[in-house]
Amino acid sequence: MSQLIPLPPSLEPFLALYLPRNGVPFVTLTYAQSLDAKIAAGPGLQTVISHLETKTMTHYLRSKHDAILVGLGTVLSDDPGLNCRYNAHRIRPVVVDPRRQWVYQGSRIDCTVASGDGLAPFIIIDAATEVPKAADAYLEAAGGRYVRLERAGGQFDWRRLLDALAEYGIGSVMVEGGAKVINSLLVYQSEGKGVVDSLIVTVGPVYLGDQGVGVSPMKNVWPSSVTWWSGVQDSVMCAKLE
Amino acid sequence: MSQLIPLPPSLEPFLALYLPRNGVPFVTLTYAQSLDAKIAAGPGLQTVISHLETKTMTHYLRSKHDAILVGLGTVLSDDPGLNCRYNAHRIRPVVVDPRRQWVYQGSRIDCTVASGDGLAPFIIIDAATEVPKAADAYLEAAGGRYVRLERAGGQFDWRRLLDALAEYGIGSVMVEGGAKVINSLLVYQSEGKGVVDSLIVTVGPVYLGDQGVGVSPMKNVWPSSVTWWSGVQDSVMCAKLE
Ligand SMILES: NC(=O)c1ccc[n+]([C@@H]2O[C@H](COP(=O)([O-])OP(=O)(O)OC[C@H]3O[C@@H](n4cnc5c(N)ncnc54)[C@H](OP(=O)(O)O)[C@@H]3O)[C@@H](O)[C@H]2O)c1
Ligand SMILES: NC(=O)c1ccc[n+]([C@@H]2O[C@H](COP(=O)([O-])OP(=O)(O)OC[C@H]3O[C@@H](n4cnc5c(N)ncnc54)[C@H](OP(=O)(O)O)[C@@H]3O)[C@@H](O)[C@H]2O)c1
Repeated sequence: MSQLIPLPPSLEPFLALYLPRNGVPFVTLTYAQSLDAKIAAGPGLQTVISHLETKTMTHYLRSKHDAILVGLGTVLSDDPGLNCRYNAHRIRPVVVDPRRQWVYQGSRIDCTVASGDGLAPFIIIDAATEVPKAADAYLEAAGGRYVRLERAGGQFDWRRLLDALAEYGIGSVMVEGGAKVINSLLVYQSEGKGVVDSLIVTVGPVYLGDQGVGVSPMKNVWPSSVTWWSGVQDSVMCAKLE
Repeated sequence: MSQLIPLPPSLEPFLALYLPRNGVPFVTLTYAQSLDAKIAAGPGLQTVISHLETKTMTHYLRSKHDAILVGLGTVLSDDPGLNCRYNAHRIRPVVVDPRRQWVYQGSRIDCTVASGDGLAPFIIIDAATEVPKAADAYLEAAGGRYVRLERAGGQFDWRRLLDALAEYGIGSVMVEGGAKVINSLLVYQSEGKGVVDSLIVTVGPVYLGDQGVGVSPMKNVWPSSVTWWSGVQDSVMCAKLE
């Protein structure tokens, strides 16, 4: 596990306007992409795109949120820790896994929880998905839970998903990926059902090539209030989505 | 035709290291893309991606090059002027059109030439492609020419193409697109046959969506010596390709 470095001082004021304010449900969509808009070199290939300073930024951003949300594809391919290593903030992992295809027990998140370095996940499953009693008990004992939601057309409604999280006291969510989750959220947004408050995209100066996992929604999306920050390697865009 | 605005003062030193030096054949690959790496919203749809200040930058960059190269797809879809409106520099349009599918006569470039605002194009065609005598004479009279090259596997070899241009005194070429030309050049580069000296990519903060014309080469490409500049709307990456 690589060390974090000090946060570049200019990043903190740069990000301030785009961070959750207390008590308001807030969604930050954030990810790192290559120039050619790939977030991984290929399906199942976890790929380092951003510099260590923007990785530090990601942990700083996590420290400002109650929960971090990813999709099934991301936990299956990356087995991520999904904790926060900035200011020892405890963040809630949320995994969108409609058919409960992810095995929590033994995952890296499970190990992180066992070692006291993170919270157990909330796993969003379809209302009709069955959970074996033992798995349910294991997750609850760790402090996590299965959250059941109806899907329409195979999709959870993001507003309802966020409302469900709010019921458990989650006032801010950082959505980190993967591609399907990001595209689904951008399309939802473009249909006028705004749930995303801030968009923070790191662009790493590399072409991952046309076999990569790409982010591109099914519709046009026009961010507003755009500002850019450049670090030693990457450019970071902050914007609002209305 | 929109007006240019003054070049932002910080752009000139930012770009200086990435511009051709006298007497050295030099290739700059430059284009504007959306966040999701699209250079147009769809095939045949000319799309404004960059702010007027980065459009001004494009004309400034043109003023530092002898020629500007685009592919058939770009002339067919955009009917571009391909002249330089910065410092009244006269730049040579070069069009890669293997089977001579583009009709020069009556095109916007033809009008630009007729009105004295630009040079007639060099059109790169396959050695086996026939050119009607009248078309050949029309282009020559305007000061342009057909340049014949062999293709291998349907592709011109970029090194030989540049050598052919050098024979006509062209010491620097700015390659502006479209997607096929850019991807072809990036793949050529990634095979170690370096012809591109500088890479200048403008990223506009918009998602054009998955029906857009995308830039993503068939292989990984890792630019070096990367620096970023941000304007009022866009981020500009300058890099070297080795
Ligand atoms: N660079 C980065 O910042 C970054 C961050 C995270 C992940 N990644 C990369 O992303 C890749 C994984 O991406 P991915 O697209 O394969 O997977 P993903 O987006 O992580 O997860 C896809 C899963 O989420 C479900 N899902 C998404 N939106 C949904 C909705 N509204 N309602 C119901 N289900 C929904 C999908 O269900 P359906 O299949 O039923 O639609 C699918 O099961 C990995 O390679 C990982 O490395 C990169
Ligand atoms: N945003 C920007 O900066 C920007 C700039 C320019 C253009 N554009 C957009 O790009 C789009 C056009 O892109 P496009 O991909 O369709 O067309 P394109 O790249 O302009 O032209 C494609 C043509 O060039 C030929 N070609 C490319 N490389 C070749 C090589 N090495 N040897 C031989 N022939 C080669 C192709 O031949 P084959 O088909 O035989 O391979 C094809 O005929 C338009 O929508 C335009 O608006 C955007």
